Amino acid sequence: MTGWREYLAEHESAWFEEILELLRIPSISTDPERKADVAATAEWIAERMQRAGVPEVEIVRGPGHPLVTGRWIVPDKPRVLIYGHYDVQPVEPLDLWLSPPFEPTVRDGKIYARGSGDMKANLLNVIHAVEAFANTNGQPPVSLIFLFEGEEEIGSPNLPAYVEANKEALACDFVVSADSGVAGPDVPSLTVGLKGLAGCQIDIRTGERDMHSGMYGAMVPNANQVAAQLAASFHTADGTVAVDGFFDKVIPLTDDDEREIARASAEETPILEESGAFAYWGEPGYSPAERAYARPTLDINGIWGGFTGEGSKTVTPAEAHIKVTCRLVPDQDPHEIVRLLEAHVAKHIYPGVKYEVRANPGIAYPFRVQQDHPALKKAAQALEEIFGREPIYTRSGGSVPLTAVFQRVLGADTVSYAFTLAGSGPHAPNEWFRVEDLARGRVGNCRLFELLGE
Amino acid sequence: MTGWREYLAEHESAWFEEILELLRIPSISTDPERKADVAATAEWIAERMQRAGVPEVEIVRGPGHPLVTGRWIVPDKPRVLIYGHYDVQPVEPLDLWLSPPFEPTVRDGKIYARGSGDMKANLLNVIHAVEAFANTNGQPPVSLIFLFEGEEEIGSPNLPAYVEANKEALACDFVVSADSGVAGPDVPSLTVGLKGLAGCQIDIRTGERDMHSGMYGAMVPNANQVAAQLAASFHTADGTVAVDGFFDKVIPLTDDDEREIARASAEETPILEESGAFAYWGEPGYSPAERAYARPTLDINGIWGGFTGEGSKTVTPAEAHIKVTCRLVPDQDPHEIVRLLEAHVAKHIYPGVKYEVRANPGIAYPFRVQQDHPALKKAAQALEEIFGREPIYTRSGGSVPLTAVFQRVLGADTVSYAFTLAGSGPHAPNEWFRVEDLARGRVGNCRLFELLGE
Repeated sequence: MTGWREYLAEHESAWFEEILELLRIPSISTDPERKADVAATAEWIAERMQRAGVPEVEIVRGPGHPLVTGRWIVPDKPRVLIYGHYDVQPVEPLDLWLSPPFEPTVRDGKIYARGSGDMKANLLNVIHAVEAFANTNGQPPVSLIFLFEGEEEIGSPNLPAYVEANKEALACDFVVSADSGVAGPDVPSLTVGLKGLAGCQIDIRTGERDMHSGMYGAMVPNANQVAAQLAASFHTADGTVAVDGFFDKVIPLTDDDEREIARASAEETPILEESGAFAYWGEPGYSPAERAYARPTLDINGIWGGFTGEGSKTVTPAEAHIKVTCRLVPDQDPHEIVRLLEAHVAKHIYPGVKYEVRANPGIAYPFRVQQDHPALKKAAQALEEIFGREPIYTRSGGSVPLTAVFQRVLGADTVSYAFTLAGSGPHAPNEWFRVEDLARGRVGNCRLFELLGE
Repeated sequence: MTGWREYLAEHESAWFEEILELLRIPSISTDPERKADVAATAEWIAERMQRAGVPEVEIVRGPGHPLVTGRWIVPDKPRVLIYGHYDVQPVEPLDLWLSPPFEPTVRDGKIYARGSGDMKANLLNVIHAVEAFANTNGQPPVSLIFLFEGEEEIGSPNLPAYVEANKEALACDFVVSADSGVAGPDVPSLTVGLKGLAGCQIDIRTGERDMHSGMYGAMVPNANQVAAQLAASFHTADGTVAVDGFFDKVIPLTDDDEREIARASAEETPILEESGAFAYWGEPGYSPAERAYARPTLDINGIWGGFTGEGSKTVTPAEAHIKVTCRLVPDQDPHEIVRLLEAHVAKHIYPGVKYEVRANPGIAYPFRVQQDHPALKKAAQALEEIFGREPIYTRSGGSVPLTAVFQRVLGADTVSYAFTLAGSGPHAPNEWFRVEDLARGRVGNCRLFELLGE
C-alpha cells in the first residue's frame, strides 16, 4: 500500500484541473445576483468531500448562503474542526484585472483568479489531504469536523448562531482555520492574533432631490460636502481615529509585544513594495507593523454621491453615502464600536440633514491565541519540516470572525494554518496563488493531521 | 390678413405636439454616447427654423457639438442676436424620475421632461414667434440673428472662439438670451446678473491597486479618506469657501445691492419649499438670497471611490475622484480660480499621494447688465403687459458663459428673457415647464420683438 506522499504526487495533474474548475465559479457572497453561483460552489465542495471519502457530508441551508459540513470521527483520536470559506470578495474594479477574475490564468507559476489565495486553493488542499489518507490509510489520523461557510467575506452573519445551536456536534479539541497564509515563500509563519471587525453604511440626504448648483448651491447643504466633512472627521489630521471612546478598551502593547512584532515584521516583504502603495500613513507613535498587527483602524471603504460620470454636471446633490469598517483589537467589542460610530455621526453631521446609520450584519470579535498552545506547537513543527526553519509568530490585520466564536462557544482555540503568500492580493485585482504551493499545502495538511493525531 | 396673436392661437394644438417631439430627443451634451442624438437635435432645430421662414439657416460643425445659426436681416431695423441652447443636462439619478426623462408626460398642467424648462420650450417658442410674424407680416419687426448651441450644459467650450471668428456676421445691437425664466407664475422678473463658472476634476491615487483593509489599511493612505479630507478642506466649518485668494477679486455688495436683493427675494418662493432642501447652509454674514445672487460658491458635484455596491467590502481603495465647480461673481476670473483650486489641492493633499487636477474645458466669466439699459426696459415693458405688473430685477446664481463673451467681443449687452418658472427643477429629476407658459412665451417673444423694433 502506498503512503499519502505518493498518493499526493500521483494526483497532482488531475487536481490542478480541479482547482481551476472551482475558481471558475463566481461565488461572490455580497452580490445578490451571485446567489446561485454561491449555492453551486457549496454543491461542488460537498460533492468533492464525499468523493474524498468523508462519510457524513451535509449542505445546511439557512437564512443566508449554505454551509457545507462534514464529519469523520475516528475513535480515540483528537477532534479537529477544520474551518474555511468558499465565498470570495467582489472583483471591482474589473478593468484592473490582467485576466478575467473567474477565468483562472497561469502566469509565472501563479494562478491568477479571484478566490485563489483567499481561500479556494487552501480549502481544496484540505479535501485532497483527506482523500490521500482515505485511499492509503482507510481513515485520517485525527477526527475531523468540517465547517465550510459561504459568508465569510460578508462577515459571517449567520455562522455564530449555527455554532451556538450545534455545539455538541461541533465539540472539538481545537480548530484549524485554513483561512490563512505564510509571510513569504521561505518564511513560514503562524498567526497568533486576528483583528475584530465592525462597520456600517451611512446614508445622507440633504433634500428631496438633486439641485441646480447655481440656483441653490449657495443656500442649502450639498450632500457630498456633508459626506466629505463627516468622512474626514473620523480621523485627526495625523491619522489617529477620532471617534470618541474608540481606544478605551484597547489593551496597550507590552515591551514583549513590541519585540515580537519587530522580529516578525523584519522578515516580511517591505510594505510599499508588497502593497503597491505610494506612501506610509497611519497612527503616529507606532511602527507600520505595530499598527497593522495590533492597533485598531478605521477605513472609508466607499464614498459616493452626485455626478460621477464623464464630463461635468453643475449639481448640488441631495444624497451621498459612506461605507466604513473598523478593524479591532482585544478587548474592543464590535457592537460597542458600532454604537460609537453612530454617536460620532450624530455629533458631526451637519444639523438638519437626514441620515441613517446601518450597521453591517457581519461583525467579528478580535482573537488571540497563546504561543505555547499545544496545537500551535504541532503546526510549528509541521511548518519547520516543510520550510526547513522555524516559523515566525505574527498577528494579522485581517479578521476571521469565527475564531472568537469558537473560543467562546466551543472552548476551542484556533490555529490558523495555510499556504497563501503575503502580497498575493486577496480582495484586490489580480489575486494569485502559487502553483507550487498547491503541493506544499497538501503535504502540509497531511503532516499537520499526523502530528495532531499523535 | 390675421395678426400674430390669431396665428399663435390657431397653431397652439399642432405646436404642442412639436415640443413633445423635441423633448423626446436625448440631447445630453456631456455624454459621448449621446453625440448622435445631440446632432439629430441640431438637425431638428435647423429644419424647424427653415420651416418658420428664416431665410438663412446653417448647421455649423466644429470640434464639438454642432451650432445652429440663422439670419433674418430686415433693413433699417435694430439687430438682435437670439442666444439659446438645445442640449440638456444628464438625467441621473434615473430612479427619482416619476416618468422617463425623455418621454414627456403632462401632469397637473406641466410637461415633465429633461430639457423642458432648460430650455427647449423657450427655444421653440422663439421659432414659433418668428413663424407668426413670417406668415402674417412677411418678416419680423426686428433683424434677427440666431445662435443656438449644443454645448451650454458643458460650459460652451467652443462657442467663444466661434463668436471671436465671426464677429462681423454676429454684429448686433444687443443679445436676447432665451436661457432664462421668471421668479413665479405671477412675478415677472429680469435677470441683471449671472454668475461665472470654473471647475475641475481631481483624480487621486494612493497606490497601484486596491488593498485589503486588514493587511494594509493601518499602514498606507486610503484614497477615499484622502479625497474626503481634501473635499472637506474646500470650506471652513461655517460654510465659507476656504481656498486661498478666492474672494480677493470679489466686488463687495453695496447698500443699494442689498436693498435690491432683499426686494427681489421677498417675492420669490421660499427656498426650502422650492428646492426640496431640508436646511439652509452657506457663507455666514449674508442672507440666502445674497449668497445665491451675489456671492461666489464652491460645490462638490461628485465624489466617488472604493466599493459603492450593495453590501460590504473591506477594501482600502487606491483611487478616488472629486468633481468641483465654482460659481463666480464680478470681478473673479475663472482661469485664475482654476489656478487657485490647483494650488489648494497641492497644499492640502496628503504627501506622497499622486493626483491630477483636470480643469473643466467650459468656463464662464461673471456678467452684469445695468438696470436702465434700453433693451432691458423694452423687455420690462413686454413683461408688464403680459403679467399686469412691473418685473422685479434679480441676479441669478446660474451661469450663461456667453453673456460675458458677447459683451467683450460684440460689445453687446444681453437681456435674459424667457418663461421657465423658478422651482421647475432644471438639472434635477422631474424637470417641468407649464403648458400655459408655452402660449405666454410665444406672445412674450412677439411683443418683445415688436417693442425692440420700434
